Formats: sequence, structure tokens, C-alpha cells
Amino acid sequence: MIVEVLTVGTELLLGQIVNSNAATIGEILAAQGYDAHYQVTVGDNPERMESAIALALERADAVIVTGGIGPTPDDLTREAICAVAGRAMKFSDEWAETLRRRFAERGWMMPASNLRQAEYPDGADLLHNPKGTAPGLALSHRGKWIFAVPGVPMEMVEMVTGEVIPRLRQAAGVSETLVSRVVRTWGRSESRTAEILEDLYQSSENPSLAYLASSGEIKVRITAKAADAATAEEMIAPISDEVCRRLGWAVFGFDDQTVEHRLLQMCEERAWTIGTAESMTAGMVAARLTSLPGASRVFRGSVVSYATDLKEQLLGVDSDVLDGGVVSARTAGEMAEGARRTLGVDVGIGITGSAGPDPADRPVGAVYVGVSTPERTATRRLRLPGDRERVRTYATTAALHLARLGISGKWWNR
Amino acid sequence: MIVEVLTVGTELLLGQIVNSNAATIGEILAAQGYDAHYQVTVGDNPERMESAIALALERADAVIVTGGIGPTPDDLTREAICAVAGRAMKFSDEWAETLRRRFAERGWMMPASNLRQAEYPDGADLLHNPKGTAPGLALSHRGKWIFAVPGVPMEMVEMVTGEVIPRLRQAAGVSETLVSRVVRTWGRSESRTAEILEDLYQSSENPSLAYLASSGEIKVRITAKAADAATAEEMIAPISDEVCRRLGWAVFGFDDQTVEHRLLQMCEERAWTIGTAESMTAGMVAARLTSLPGASRVFRGSVVSYATDLKEQLLGVDSDVLDGGVVSARTAGEMAEGARRTLGVDVGIGITGSAGPDPADRPVGAVYVGVSTPERTATRRLRLPGDRERVRTYATTAALHLARLGISGKWWNR
Repeated sequence: MIVEVLTVGTELLLGQIVNSNAATIGEILAAQGYDAHYQVTVGDNPERMESAIALALERADAVIVTGGIGPTPDDLTREAICAVAGRAMKFSDEWAETLRRRFAERGWMMPASNLRQAEYPDGADLLHNPKGTAPGLALSHRGKWIFAVPGVPMEMVEMVTGEVIPRLRQAAGVSETLVSRVVRTWGRSESRTAEILEDLYQSSENPSLAYLASSGEIKVRITAKAADAATAEEMIAPISDEVCRRLGWAVFGFDDQTVEHRLLQMCEERAWTIGTAESMTAGMVAARLTSLPGASRVFRGSVVSYATDLKEQLLGVDSDVLDGGVVSARTAGEMAEGARRTLGVDVGIGITGSAGPDPADRPVGAVYVGVSTPERTATRRLRLPGDRERVRTYATTAALHLARLGISGKWWNR
Repeated sequence: MIVEVLTVGTELLLGQIVNSNAATIGEILAAQGYDAHYQVTVGDNPERMESAIALALERADAVIVTGGIGPTPDDLTREAICAVAGRAMKFSDEWAETLRRRFAERGWMMPASNLRQAEYPDGADLLHNPKGTAPGLALSHRGKWIFAVPGVPMEMVEMVTGEVIPRLRQAAGVSETLVSRVVRTWGRSESRTAEILEDLYQSSENPSLAYLASSGEIKVRITAKAADAATAEEMIAPISDEVCRRLGWAVFGFDDQTVEHRLLQMCEERAWTIGTAESMTAGMVAARLTSLPGASRVFRGSVVSYATDLKEQLLGVDSDVLDGGVVSARTAGEMAEGARRTLGVDVGIGITGSAGPDPADRPVGAVYVGVSTPERTATRRLRLPGDRERVRTYATTAALHLARLGISGKWWNR
């Protein structure tokens, strides 16, 4: 089944915002096994919206239109669908009432313009929008489907997964369910990972394996097709176990679990606190660790010692060590130990390196990470490619992963 | 003149990467005054690429294809252009030589597959790519233009601005030049800014004014059309001066200049050093300040005092002040002063607040920023909307701006 995504909004054409909705819907459709041939963006222009919807219906089995269903005069998706499908515009008293009640619950007066959101093309279902006021639309037209979902990403995702996908599955007469699990790893290259899993990859068709790389992390996606989700998950389990067994220490989580999430969890399990001593990343590791709610249960703080003398004064790094090389394994190790003392934490992460563009003490991309736990201090040298931003981002991710390996003891035991 | 952007890549359809190229080209075209009606994304599929290019040529005056001009077998843009325009594929010995020389200069052997990049549709110009190996293409076909540019963003931008835009201008017979200057401000709402500039906005057609908002910053874009760039710039200058005069303290820079850039510059002018004491932003302000090369000339470091007791121990915030409210103006002020002492800097920025999702001491979005300079310490209360990530990002931007206003003295003098 071929599904085309049509994003509506002049601000997208003008480049004022980046079209993340198309990517999000593309990812959801791909995970469900639908084909995508085209994605189209069109401005808030009635004729061009109509022609884009009509063209999508010619070359696909379903079109998902995102945006243009709000209350303002330039929200024209409802009208465009009526025009393409030759339907009259209807008004839902029930939805008007729902809208009025929603506003009243928040103690607001509903602007009259919001009643436009109770309009719908004759024959369309209005789709529930728990996170916003604009209902979506689902219209079956000459054996094909037209969907309209909000442009607000959070509302869009909920409606696509909760309302659109089930209708597509039914339309496709799919009695099978597609379930994916992502095994997340860090520490080996994509090619090395693929080598280790080569025979599984070759022999396994259902479930099937795929590799995805981002920011130095390698994800292995295992996808199974079965009559129902429970069966698909049963099929995935042994493959997932085998992948985890083979990749061992590199595996840090599943699906949406991030390394910072895992790290905070590991600290909580051990009742350990954590803190960082950062130079070239200048707070980026601390910022990642605190991106999660509840971080304060284990994260206590950070010393960003960008100036060399602060490494000595605030973290107690030995001046001879600094003389021997500010960007060095010994400095990183002493920074990690200094973080433990200065911040009063159980786990200290130290990072020093050269982010460029001009080589500081060492070549650009040379990074040293130290991790100190109540059990041991270890250091690692990294050589990262790319520009200043990329080197700092990769160094941040690497530091979080080395801390994970340090805490679990897998770093020094493997 | 209507220009259509066509991005090529199956990874875009699958949502593995977000299509930032379409936004970037859209912004460049809009700034030059070209119209965009559609943006289309297509996978690495020859027939569909051909049909997308053909359709773009029907409904636009020019199509810019991005992606698909690399050396691998799934780079098919060259072939698709030949098919649509009915051209034979030619081979450029000169480009083959250029490619060989480029590789040799880096001490690499050139893989034979790279020779594909010396191929071009008969009649097309090969476009110089100073940052990569794939040349672009420009083909005039039946009064319309087909351009092919790389998918790598940095290479794409350079080629679009340096090679594509000049050809479009010539094709459109444009003897006029469009020049824009962006006046960047922070501290007033978009509607208040528009009010202050209302009469200028209404009376000024060339140069014209436009407003753009992002992350709390308001940009005023002044665009002039003239016979040449120098004349356009002369036309912009008095309007720009008047906009700056009216918006006063809120103005912090022009065009691509960021607040962190301005802040480091102001510190350098005064031979002042700077550092931060962060709680809810946990290093994000320090990370922004050090995103620029050369930051080490003025930025010394940061104390992330996430745990309350570290605010006292490392920054010397009075325990009575903390008892009175960790999220308070007095705490922010003492953190800023503590940063000056602990880090030995001239300018200290202090931030404390509640990022959510659960209200800490104060309601979610309540943020206090303190700025301490050799001249004075001041604090400001902010109330920021949104989720945890948004509150932290906006707080970071606000802290940088308040530091700018504190250093210039405009904060307390206005």
C-alpha cells in the first residue's frame, strides 16, 4: 500500500520552519511497512492544495494531509478536500458542542472562528484530537483514503498512530501486525556490528534485521510480522536476546531509551550520585544528563573548567599533570577524580580535548574521557572527526557511554 | 519567477533524516524574491525522479534538484536529467582530471566509481564545488532551467548562492539586486516591536520590512531592490539606523550575528572575563558561550550547582537566602556574584528556576537570572511557557541577553 504525505504551510516553502512532520510520518509509515514514493509540501493556496491532493490520489492509495485544519482563514484543508472529492461541507453540532465544552473547561470564551473546526466534508469521519481543538478527518473516496491531521507535531503523532494507522490497516485488509524492537548500542562501528550479526542478518527474513547509525550510536532494528502483536513479540524475543548476547557490553537500551536515561537509572540502582568536570564540552554532558525529569535524584552538579588554572584550583588536578598536557589521559582522569571530591559525588566524568577549529594542545578531534567510580578510575582516548560542533556532540555522547561502561564495570572487565 | 525544489533520497521518505535542505533553499529563494509553489521529495528511483523533474518543469520556471549526484550507484540525478531533457550523457576529461588532482592532493587513491561525477547531460554546465568532489549541473532546457546541487548541506548552500542564484537572476533578466539586512533584537514581543515600527512598516515599500520570531528573539528584515548591491545597501542604511534607534537596547546584532558572539565581543572590548553559575540550565549557557571558536579568550568556566548544597559550598550563596527560596531573585543574584568569586571572572551569570514537569520550589517556567559585573548586580524574573526542553532553551537565550544588557549597562540605565 502506497501512502503519500502532503504537508501544508507557506512557512515551510519560505524555509521559516523545517519540515519535521514529513520525517515523523515517514518514519511511522515505514515502521508499519507502507511504501512512500513522494512527499509534497504546498503553501496555503486553495488551487495548489487541491491539485496536490488530486495528484496524490492518482499515484498513491492514501494521502495524509498535515496542517491547514486550524480555525484561521488560511486553514483551507477542509475546503480543498471538499473540492477534490466533490463533497458538500457539513457542520457537526456534536463537535461544536465538544469544542465549546473544551474551552469552557479552561474557563475561556470560544472565539466564533473556532466553529470552523466543526465543519467536515460530507461522508468524512471526524477524528478525535485529545491534545488540541482541531479534529482530524478521514474520508474514503473512490476506494482511496484522504486523511487530514493537525500540523502541531504532538497532536499529529497521536492522531496518525491512534486514528490513521488503524484505518489504513483495515483498508489494506491487513490481518498482520508489524512490530519492531530497536536494540541500541555504542562502542563498535556499523560495519563491525554488521559483521558480528552477519549470519543472523542473512538467515532472518521474519523477523528481519536493519541497521541505523546516529551520533556514533548503532541501532539494530528487529521487525516481525504476525497475526497479532503478542505473536510478533514472541518471534522477536529470541532474536533480540541473541543480538544482545553477541553485542554484549555495547548494548545499552531498547527503543526510545537514551544513554542518559540508562545512566541515571544505573546510578539510582546503586544509590550513587553523579557529576561532571568538563573542559571542551563546557557543560554539554551535564545538560544532557539533566534533560530528563527527576535527574536531581542522582545528578548533583558540574565544574566547567575551561581555563587551565581552574582545573587546578577547583578540581585539584596536579600542576605537573597539566604541564605534561592539558589535553591528556592523565588530566581527564584527574578531572574525573576531582569532580568526585569537589561535587561530593560517587561517579565523576572528566573530559578534555581539542574541538577546533585551531588545534589547541593536540590535534583537532583529540578527546580524552576519564571516569571515576568508588571502584576505579579509567581513561580513554578518542579521535573524533568533523567540525567543532560535531566533535563536541560526539564527545558528549561518548562520555555518557563511557560512564555507563565504567559504572557497570564492563569497561575494565571486558 | 517560480522555482521548485526537489530533494532526492529514500532516507528522507523513510524519515531517517529531516529535510533541512528544502528549508534552506526555500529561505535563500524567498530572500531573493523568487516564488515557491511546491517542494517535492522523491526516493532514489529513476522513473519517479524523472516524473518529478518533468512535473516541476511544467509548473515552474526552474527546478533545483538536491542530492543524487554522488559517486554511488544509487546517485541517479544525472541520468534522470538526461532522460527528461532527452540528452546524451557526456564525459568531461577536464573534470576527471580535476577529481584525480583533488584526491592526489590529499594523498588518496581515487576509487574508479568517482569518475561518474565527471559525467553530465549534453549541454549542461558543470558547477564548481569547492567543498566536495561532486560538481553540480546547470542545464537550460526549452526556456527553463534544471539545476542539480549536492545533498551535503554545506556544499549545497555554497553552490546555490554562488552558482544557481546568479544564473536564475540572469535567466529572469533581472537587472535588479535584492539585498537584505536583518536587525536582531531581544526583549520585546513581536507585537510590541511591530507597534513601534508601524509607520515605517506601512510607508516603506522599497526597502520593505518583515518580522521573524525564533526562540524569543525578534528579527526585523529590511529588504531593498536596486540596480546594484551598493545602491540597495545605501537604501537600507537609513531605515536600518531608524529601526535601531527606535528599538534601542533590544538590538544586539545584524544578520548572522548571535547573542553569544556579541557577548564575547563585548567582554573582549572591555578585557572582561565571563563565567556562569547554573542550576536549571545545567551548563547550557556555558555550552552556548563556548560554541564559538576563540571563546577561551574571555570564557573561563562554570559551576553547575544543581544540588542546593553546592550553591552554598561552591558559590557561597547564603544559607538564609536559600532557605528563603532556591528559585528566587536573591539566589540568582548571589549565584552570579558567587560565579565571579569562584571562577575569578569579571562577569557572572546566575540562573535558577523550575523547568518542570513537576513544580520544584516554584511554578514550572518560573526562572530567575542574575548578572553581576564589576559595576553592579541585577536580577530579573522570567515566566517562560512550554515543556522542560523549551523552558531550558528559552532561559538560556534570556540569560545570554540579560548578560549582554548588564555588561552594556543598558539593563539598569534604561
